[in-house]
Amino acid sequence: MVTRNGERSFHGDSHESGTFSVEENPASRTMTIEDEDHGDGGRRLDSDDKLPSVEMIFKGQVEPSWREQLTIRAFVVSFVLGVLFTFIVMKLNLTTGIIPSLNVSAGLLGFFFLKSWTKLMEKSGLLKQPFTRQENTVIQTCVVATSGIAFSGGFGSYLFGMSSTVAGQSSETNAAQNTKDPSLSWIIGFLFAVSFLGLFSVLPLRKIMIIDYKLTYPSGTATAHLINSFHTPQGAKLAKKQVRTLGKFFSFSFLWGFFQWFFTAGDGCGFVNFPTFGLKAFDNRFYFDFSATYVGVGMICPYLINISVLVGAILSWGLMWPLIKNRKGDWYSSELSESSLHGLQGYRVFISIAMILGDGLYNFIKVLGRTIQGFIKQYKKKEVIPVTERDSPQKVSNSYDDEVRTKLFLKDGIPMWVSFAGYVAIAAVSMGVIPKIFHQMKWYYVLVIYIVAPALAFCNAYGAGLTDWSLASTYGKLAIFAIGAWAGESHGGVLAGLAACGVMMNIVSTASDLMQDFKTGYMTRSSPRSMFFSQIIGTAMGCLISPCVFWLFYKAFKDLGSPESQYPAPYAAVYRSMSILGVEGFGALPDHCLTLCYVFFFGAIIINLIRDTIAKKWAKYIPLPMAMAIPFYLGSYFAIDMCVGSLILFIWGKLNKAKADAFGPAVASGLICGDGIWTLPSSILALAGVQPPICMKFLSRGTNSMVDKFLSS
Amino acid sequence: MVTRNGERSFHGDSHESGTFSVEENPASRTMTIEDEDHGDGGRRLDSDDKLPSVEMIFKGQVEPSWREQLTIRAFVVSFVLGVLFTFIVMKLNLTTGIIPSLNVSAGLLGFFFLKSWTKLMEKSGLLKQPFTRQENTVIQTCVVATSGIAFSGGFGSYLFGMSSTVAGQSSETNAAQNTKDPSLSWIIGFLFAVSFLGLFSVLPLRKIMIIDYKLTYPSGTATAHLINSFHTPQGAKLAKKQVRTLGKFFSFSFLWGFFQWFFTAGDGCGFVNFPTFGLKAFDNRFYFDFSATYVGVGMICPYLINISVLVGAILSWGLMWPLIKNRKGDWYSSELSESSLHGLQGYRVFISIAMILGDGLYNFIKVLGRTIQGFIKQYKKKEVIPVTERDSPQKVSNSYDDEVRTKLFLKDGIPMWVSFAGYVAIAAVSMGVIPKIFHQMKWYYVLVIYIVAPALAFCNAYGAGLTDWSLASTYGKLAIFAIGAWAGESHGGVLAGLAACGVMMNIVSTASDLMQDFKTGYMTRSSPRSMFFSQIIGTAMGCLISPCVFWLFYKAFKDLGSPESQYPAPYAAVYRSMSILGVEGFGALPDHCLTLCYVFFFGAIIINLIRDTIAKKWAKYIPLPMAMAIPFYLGSYFAIDMCVGSLILFIWGKLNKAKADAFGPAVASGLICGDGIWTLPSSILALAGVQPPICMKFLSRGTNSMVDKFLSS
Repeated sequence: MVTRNGERSFHGDSHESGTFSVEENPASRTMTIEDEDHGDGGRRLDSDDKLPSVEMIFKGQVEPSWREQLTIRAFVVSFVLGVLFTFIVMKLNLTTGIIPSLNVSAGLLGFFFLKSWTKLMEKSGLLKQPFTRQENTVIQTCVVATSGIAFSGGFGSYLFGMSSTVAGQSSETNAAQNTKDPSLSWIIGFLFAVSFLGLFSVLPLRKIMIIDYKLTYPSGTATAHLINSFHTPQGAKLAKKQVRTLGKFFSFSFLWGFFQWFFTAGDGCGFVNFPTFGLKAFDNRFYFDFSATYVGVGMICPYLINISVLVGAILSWGLMWPLIKNRKGDWYSSELSESSLHGLQGYRVFISIAMILGDGLYNFIKVLGRTIQGFIKQYKKKEVIPVTERDSPQKVSNSYDDEVRTKLFLKDGIPMWVSFAGYVAIAAVSMGVIPKIFHQMKWYYVLVIYIVAPALAFCNAYGAGLTDWSLASTYGKLAIFAIGAWAGESHGGVLAGLAACGVMMNIVSTASDLMQDFKTGYMTRSSPRSMFFSQIIGTAMGCLISPCVFWLFYKAFKDLGSPESQYPAPYAAVYRSMSILGVEGFGALPDHCLTLCYVFFFGAIIINLIRDTIAKKWAKYIPLPMAMAIPFYLGSYFAIDMCVGSLILFIWGKLNKAKADAFGPAVASGLICGDGIWTLPSSILALAGVQPPICMKFLSRGTNSMVDKFLSS
Repeated sequence: MVTRNGERSFHGDSHESGTFSVEENPASRTMTIEDEDHGDGGRRLDSDDKLPSVEMIFKGQVEPSWREQLTIRAFVVSFVLGVLFTFIVMKLNLTTGIIPSLNVSAGLLGFFFLKSWTKLMEKSGLLKQPFTRQENTVIQTCVVATSGIAFSGGFGSYLFGMSSTVAGQSSETNAAQNTKDPSLSWIIGFLFAVSFLGLFSVLPLRKIMIIDYKLTYPSGTATAHLINSFHTPQGAKLAKKQVRTLGKFFSFSFLWGFFQWFFTAGDGCGFVNFPTFGLKAFDNRFYFDFSATYVGVGMICPYLINISVLVGAILSWGLMWPLIKNRKGDWYSSELSESSLHGLQGYRVFISIAMILGDGLYNFIKVLGRTIQGFIKQYKKKEVIPVTERDSPQKVSNSYDDEVRTKLFLKDGIPMWVSFAGYVAIAAVSMGVIPKIFHQMKWYYVLVIYIVAPALAFCNAYGAGLTDWSLASTYGKLAIFAIGAWAGESHGGVLAGLAACGVMMNIVSTASDLMQDFKTGYMTRSSPRSMFFSQIIGTAMGCLISPCVFWLFYKAFKDLGSPESQYPAPYAAVYRSMSILGVEGFGALPDHCLTLCYVFFFGAIIINLIRDTIAKKWAKYIPLPMAMAIPFYLGSYFAIDMCVGSLILFIWGKLNKAKADAFGPAVASGLICGDGIWTLPSSILALAGVQPPICMKFLSRGTNSMVDKFLSS
């Protein structure tokens, strides 16, 4: 995640914490899309100080009331886009867990759909209400909330980590009390029980955070800029072109996915197994797998992330794993299967956990420190915190915008008692329901979480406002260790830990999401009430759509979650392993693994320290430990895809910077969305038992001549 | 071939008669490359009437003497390019026999190499003589002559048709006396014996044809325009950009060829066997084979040719062959191998011969008629023939150009006695040598050919001047039938026919080539002497390079010439089959084949008649029988490649006409050259016994599961 003040270009948890990465990722990229007419001298709208006043542009426009902002058409469009993005996020969850910002795509597509709708209605004379930026904000908020559940629902992490498929990878702790296989009913129930609490927990603080403290919320601000730009004449023109580009690459990517499908009859067939750099490299998972999705992801993620992922891949699959493999029979039993956590797979998983935890801990302390520091300052001076240097000197120039925005923001209040009553009511229901679903999760565990949660939710929302970082998954991990250890192994601590993670993550992440949306609403002069309702409706849709989409994947692709399959769901194993660690301690690790874990845990902290202390111009060349940890488990094929995406964008930028900035995100979104939506027909084909006709197979010369002999005989 | 006056856009024999197709293909495309600065309103240099005078631009420039035009550096560059283009033409010969115009690439590369050379010398202070358009013309002439031998040497047609590999496809007439396997020594001897006669046969007529009759020679004119444009400041700038484009696509195409290589361990492996449209379509040879060469060829050939080829492919492989295959055991014995000429392969070969002969006959009569008609007119009026409407009205505006050009053209004469003495001397040597090489070819056959040849050579040179068509291969076919029948089967008539074809084709084609070059020389104010010497040196280089390149292919790719292989050399079988027809009559054909041949023979004539009689705007939608006949033998994979090329150019043209016109030929040349030159390292790898490591195999689902079972057992 790129923060406004250029702090750091990658959010430590982005690849795990989909909710916020969906909303907040590269804010700086989101911005570039607003270049006027993508000309060379195009004025940027990406910070207020370059424009005297945004609201002056919209001065003549009548603001719709908050009820008028919540139109049925907006929710129809949101539903369609919600399904689309749920598919995409689910696919990303289950393949690598890297989820780029889909903000721009959601913004563009939302604008496109509703614009087409209103145009059509206008032509047929049926248009009653014009399309406003407020309505656009409602759609954006709703779509992001919906697809956010696809992430925070934990289908690629804690929730799927409970399944016996993932549990089967380790020989311990897979007793019945420590596993729970997915089923549509309990997942929906669980999501409804935990997803709304976060919204109520921070609702009363909106005035303090947005108006009084003037927190930045870089992603929320970015989204607001995007939407504001769509509704200026030039912005609308550019958006139209961007939509066209997105559409082209969407079709290409979809058709490419379709074409690939024909060649995947059987295991190891098709383009996804293309040994681009030879068979030996393929065995060490170095290959280009022709995935349009990850090329697109690479185009959206900052260069540093892509390079970090590649460095991590080379370090692990190029160096460490082959070396450890040589110790087979010495460090670990040679009889273990490839996917056993007590063998090589254990090193992969636990070393990557160590690195993730090291990075997480460092950033947790850093963000918490800054949050407290900022809060104290705020309290002392009783004035706007100069969080970023931008805010204070602009006070004067922003005053008109601020004035009209503040007026509207305060007009549509939500009474304090609603928040409290809502929180208590939902918490009570939740406490009754969750122990029913997970009998290992006692009601008092839930109660403890719900007592602690609002404070953490506030911390997270405040931290996100300052730095754009949501630490939701870090809080989730805390819950895994705390509740897991409390419950103990014999009482199903592994499962309790994972469930606790879900409860905690949902509260904390939706809290910061809501606050980001309030910021967006503030800047687009949308009513806080409509924001809140949109968020509620979006969350409810997400609680229904996400489990259904997951269910489709689960039924269609039989080997979901096994490490060698097309959908390895890497974080499911990682989260489960963390929970096992929490319950069992380090006894679960293979030989020497603990030593290596220490090295990588402290290594991650040291790398972060170096990044933060040395000069910025050098810091940008130091890889991010969090990004490096991802390929430890998966291999480097997606790192290569992402670097290809980076390379394309880099070359494009060299050839035509303005065009690459304006259309790069649209191209990337098209690639990601097209390939993502192809999973819908592909899973339906799989469910219907339609199998692809051809196998594109890759054989070594020796094997090939054997096969040729066999076939001709 | 596109003629200047838009007559017809495909030369009937272009896919066979490489020599001239190399030189003369799409003249109109060659022209477009001269757009000034490829801007929208760019002035075109493609016909004189738009420019008051070309020579005025070059007025200040001192013309080098004819000796100065023949620099060593020019011949070094020519040699390098000669080798490059020989590889390309050889590959095309042996794969499909379709050879597009490589004029533009030769022009661009020649310009690029010598320009870089002179720049380098200039910087180091060693430059003695600047780079002039005359020197450029010398290179162009020499390169085209060199690579021309790769075609007229018959490595893909008559000469390789003598080999036992090709003879083995039919069970008859493959006795020792009717086969002669290639060997480096006799091929070089044969080429030296026959390749120079054509030059001397028409040498004395150059003044009459160029100055007096003012024949158009569209391709020669086009080449001259290209070279002239390179040496204007704007032209040089554009050429530089085009060279860069060519270089980019050259590298891409080369690397793509290299990449493909890795996946071709074993038969049926690699991208060339990619069942793009499914396995069933693949069995009927409908697939996209990822060949950069044929995509490039498709970009150079006019749309009509590409469509014609596709229509022919659908008609034959989509319709006729499957229907005839159903008659297996009825129409032909079911015990015959796939490649036997008495089975299905016979239908393919003979029907395609019928179509080629029908088209050839029609055009022979047509061109001959026009030649005689033009000649009579010329003789009657004793003045410039208004061959194309362009010439007469421009007399005034062209007068300065004509004057200075004529002056120079007449200055450097070549005495008449040189031609006669040369012709007689070479003919005498040839008569001694050829019967030594082919004992079936009596010395009096050769004598007869040499008596008839000058008249035919004149006809062909004159016809090419009028219409841009060289009918060399048609004259060659006449020789096959005439000499074959004269010799008779028992005296090795098949071989004699093929040898006679070679003798005849070489004379006739080099004659028209020389005249085209004289035209180019006339228009670039190059000396006729330097043109003649350049042609002689180029031909000599070709007589050495071509056999060596062929030998490399022959040794490196063991299955050269077998119908299923990577290098099927389709015209080798076609020419041999014609010779068999000439000797044996129709007895060699399978059942009902003769009927079908009649249908297609007359069909070709009728289609041509329709094309020539109906309105031009409709005529351009009627496919060309000659182009339709090519896929009859080969299948449609290259037709699909070519249509992809067409499609790319079409879309490019829609997006940016000026750019597509200016850079399309450069892109196409890059694709063709890169892939073509990859055959050099690829054949060296094959000779060295280095085999690719991976097989990319395509199996049906059923076969795949069998193979998986076999491999896991």
